[in-house]
Amino acid sequence: MPVNVVLYQPEIPPNTGTIARTCAATGTSLHLIKPLGFSIEDKHLKRAGLDYWHLLDLHIYENVEEFFEKNKGKRIYFGTTKAKSYYTDMTYEEDCFIMFGKETAGIPMDILNKHMDTCIKIPMVKNEKARSLNLSNSVNIVLYEVLRQLGFKDLV
Amino acid sequence: MPVNVVLYQPEIPPNTGTIARTCAATGTSLHLIKPLGFSIEDKHLKRAGLDYWHLLDLHIYENVEEFFEKNKGKRIYFGTTKAKSYYTDMTYEEDCFIMFGKETAGIPMDILNKHMDTCIKIPMVKNEKARSLNLSNSVNIVLYEVLRQLGFKDLV
Repeated sequence: MPVNVVLYQPEIPPNTGTIARTCAATGTSLHLIKPLGFSIEDKHLKRAGLDYWHLLDLHIYENVEEFFEKNKGKRIYFGTTKAKSYYTDMTYEEDCFIMFGKETAGIPMDILNKHMDTCIKIPMVKNEKARSLNLSNSVNIVLYEVLRQLGFKDLV
Repeated sequence: MPVNVVLYQPEIPPNTGTIARTCAATGTSLHLIKPLGFSIEDKHLKRAGLDYWHLLDLHIYENVEEFFEKNKGKRIYFGTTKAKSYYTDMTYEEDCFIMFGKETAGIPMDILNKHMDTCIKIPMVKNEKARSLNLSNSVNIVLYEVLRQLGFKDLV
């Protein structure tokens, strides 16, 4: 079973594009929760993802309720600077989900509050002004830690 | 001593911009080897790196010979799809360097051939058409593995 990346209301096309590219390159499923800040036909999105869209296992949801309803019982991790645990503190299993929020605001607190035990953060310097990573980079860092723990199964 | 990211002749401004942002966020030094595919004053570069340039330990070299001359004796790892080892196979030490090539062509073979024992690759699916990651994502994946091995020292 593949790993799953979930983007909650992503805003910037090239971010979703390069994340799609990584998903295609790793056999990871990509889940997008609407509203999106772009059309799925956007040329910047396609360019960043190059021509890998047809290789992608893509799921699109009308809203976050639909996402939780359709993925009931799944193990979901939430990437947020508000987490107490590092992403490397978790033991990930096959078929798990890693969710990331919109670029400007992250995942809403009401979702995080219900799932504090599986919230994860990426360590950064203490200087608040420098504590910021690009969304696509954040997703790639966490996804490859999950894949590392799973032994890079089916990858070479 | 910080970790060091080296970009050999990077071409696309937003890639170097988001890599600079990650370097600022992790206290990592950034080394750029000319020719660059953009001006260091490029607005796309600055936007991607936001306003973190002043927090960055930035080194610029006129050519690759100058880079090797000034960093003689340092442990340097080379990110390349031509490597035999996974990036997770290495034991990284403080003050090490991780080098990545230009987006379209990678690091030249004459450099790789002299350093095959420290060449590293990121595992991907077997399908050749899907085996491709964005440069910025590749750098972030490897850098955070190095930082993980070093215990995320000075990061929170």
